[in-house]
Amino acid sequence: MKDIRLALVGFGNVGRCFAQELRGSYARALRAAGVKVRVTGIATARHGLAIDPNGLALYRARRLVESGRSLEGLGRGRQPGSVRQLIARVPADVLVEISTLDPRHGEPAISHVRQALNRGLHVVTANKGPVAFARGALVALARRKGRFFLHESAVMDGTPVFNLVERCLAGCQVIGFRGTLNSTTNLILSRMEEGLSADAALAEAQALGIAEADPRNDVDGWDAAVKGCALAAALMGATVAPRAVSRRGMGRLTAGEVRRALREGARVRLVVRGERRGGMVRVRVRPERVPLGDPLVGAGADNVLMVETDLMGEIGIVERGSTVDQTAYGLLSDLLRIVREP
Amino acid sequence: MKDIRLALVGFGNVGRCFAQELRGSYARALRAAGVKVRVTGIATARHGLAIDPNGLALYRARRLVESGRSLEGLGRGRQPGSVRQLIARVPADVLVEISTLDPRHGEPAISHVRQALNRGLHVVTANKGPVAFARGALVALARRKGRFFLHESAVMDGTPVFNLVERCLAGCQVIGFRGTLNSTTNLILSRMEEGLSADAALAEAQALGIAEADPRNDVDGWDAAVKGCALAAALMGATVAPRAVSRRGMGRLTAGEVRRALREGARVRLVVRGERRGGMVRVRVRPERVPLGDPLVGAGADNVLMVETDLMGEIGIVERGSTVDQTAYGLLSDLLRIVREP
Repeated sequence: MKDIRLALVGFGNVGRCFAQELRGSYARALRAAGVKVRVTGIATARHGLAIDPNGLALYRARRLVESGRSLEGLGRGRQPGSVRQLIARVPADVLVEISTLDPRHGEPAISHVRQALNRGLHVVTANKGPVAFARGALVALARRKGRFFLHESAVMDGTPVFNLVERCLAGCQVIGFRGTLNSTTNLILSRMEEGLSADAALAEAQALGIAEADPRNDVDGWDAAVKGCALAAALMGATVAPRAVSRRGMGRLTAGEVRRALREGARVRLVVRGERRGGMVRVRVRPERVPLGDPLVGAGADNVLMVETDLMGEIGIVERGSTVDQTAYGLLSDLLRIVREP
Repeated sequence: MKDIRLALVGFGNVGRCFAQELRGSYARALRAAGVKVRVTGIATARHGLAIDPNGLALYRARRLVESGRSLEGLGRGRQPGSVRQLIARVPADVLVEISTLDPRHGEPAISHVRQALNRGLHVVTANKGPVAFARGALVALARRKGRFFLHESAVMDGTPVFNLVERCLAGCQVIGFRGTLNSTTNLILSRMEEGLSADAALAEAQALGIAEADPRNDVDGWDAAVKGCALAAALMGATVAPRAVSRRGMGRLTAGEVRRALREGARVRLVVRGERRGGMVRVRVRPERVPLGDPLVGAGADNVLMVETDLMGEIGIVERGSTVDQTAYGLLSDLLRIVREP
């Protein structure tokens, strides 16, 4: 059995679910891959940090954070005073970057990823920020260091959107894509079709834990724009700054318009598009009327990405629901890739 | 540049499209993979056979077959008298098996695949028969011989259904699947919703070249059943004989029923399901009412496969349209995999 040491930066819902499943439903897959996983470091924003070279007690760590206490007493040896110190010192092979993101700048995730790659760690992240704002530079850095920088959960949770294009569409070039990638607005618009007001629908998305910390990022299309840039970078090799996205949110939409569209055979969805035009890749976000037979029309919070290729025409990938478990799974799938392709 | 020699068994629409694109839109991808491809043998059912160790003239071969003439004059050296002799003798690295299939027995494709693997060739096929009727034995044979047996185009043309599960869902177990995998019935049912009769809709599918050679195989659910068995084998490791599928075709459906379903918010589709029940995998085919928001409801001839997993919930993959080019692309994608993973 090969020993793999992980450091988790961020220990919110996704991190705690991931930590729980390492000893639960992921155990079989890890065993089959011939690895034993230890978590040697955890950094949180409000509940302290801890390092234990022998592996932290994950159940206790979850209990501490969930009851509002600090991880500080959990570590062994010299403890770090900051995330920066933890990344610099933790005895680990892989950094799992799942800190809370400022979606307007992609930080502090980008700095965490860069620091860890520079130190020679592999990096796995569920954060879209580093992919959207800095993928080119981070992939180049990872390559120089002979390490992986993987981010399957950055868009559509653990649904294999990046792996699909990279590993299953050999020889194809992506000409463009279109997607309904923001679960919150998908859900809000579905509920508005059923007669709910936009505000009541948003409250439901928040209660389900789907909405962004600041739901304005969902509603104004910023989350979708950042995801569009992440896809443009990974699928089309194009650097598009999120600020350069032509973006219109769902702000002005009324329930009346949404219901009228439905009567006329279409669903209003916040659609992200990436297109190559004259050598440039452009990303835009708009509420669009999607005809009922189009695969982009999912139900509820479903996310859908359609990819247009030169050799294989248009294919798509669908995620039903959008749960913390699905995001955590993407981290496992990246981790297994690191283990299997050394 | 590495030299790869292909033998094509079958030279119908898919084979000729594939041969054309080898010198056309596939050239870039093959160059990037560092390979030079030669087709050293072609076998047809009604237009003769030809072998040329230096590579057959593909443009001429297409012209001959398309104008109803024989390939016989095209070869160099001793020429084969049968497909069996061609597979035994052709100087090739990869057999591309795209002969016309008897969907009730999977032959002659299974025999071609077995013979080629036994001779030490890699095999790539777009035929569902060998996958549905004999995948377990053929994969075991390929493994013993250190060769690939790949079949991405066997279900949903070149859409990466097999690769998705094998290469992008590491650690997941497939609990079940459901799909609308038969383009002909998808199209027929879509047209019946618009008011066409079943017969007129079938005529349209035949005019588009989508329907099976014998369209009864589409309409009675046999094609879908065979595809379900291929998926059960590859995705769930289960051997299910196509005759053991609980199968009901769309024979008794009337346009009235289809339109009534639509008024009530559902589309009738011929759905294939695979489910694990008490250690056994069962496959069934039925016309089902699929609610309008469900991803299985595609438009026109679209194919959709939803896969239920233990760790990642339900995800799906969508193919828009269903063209000969998309089937041919699956052969390229298998070929590139052989080249890249030696």
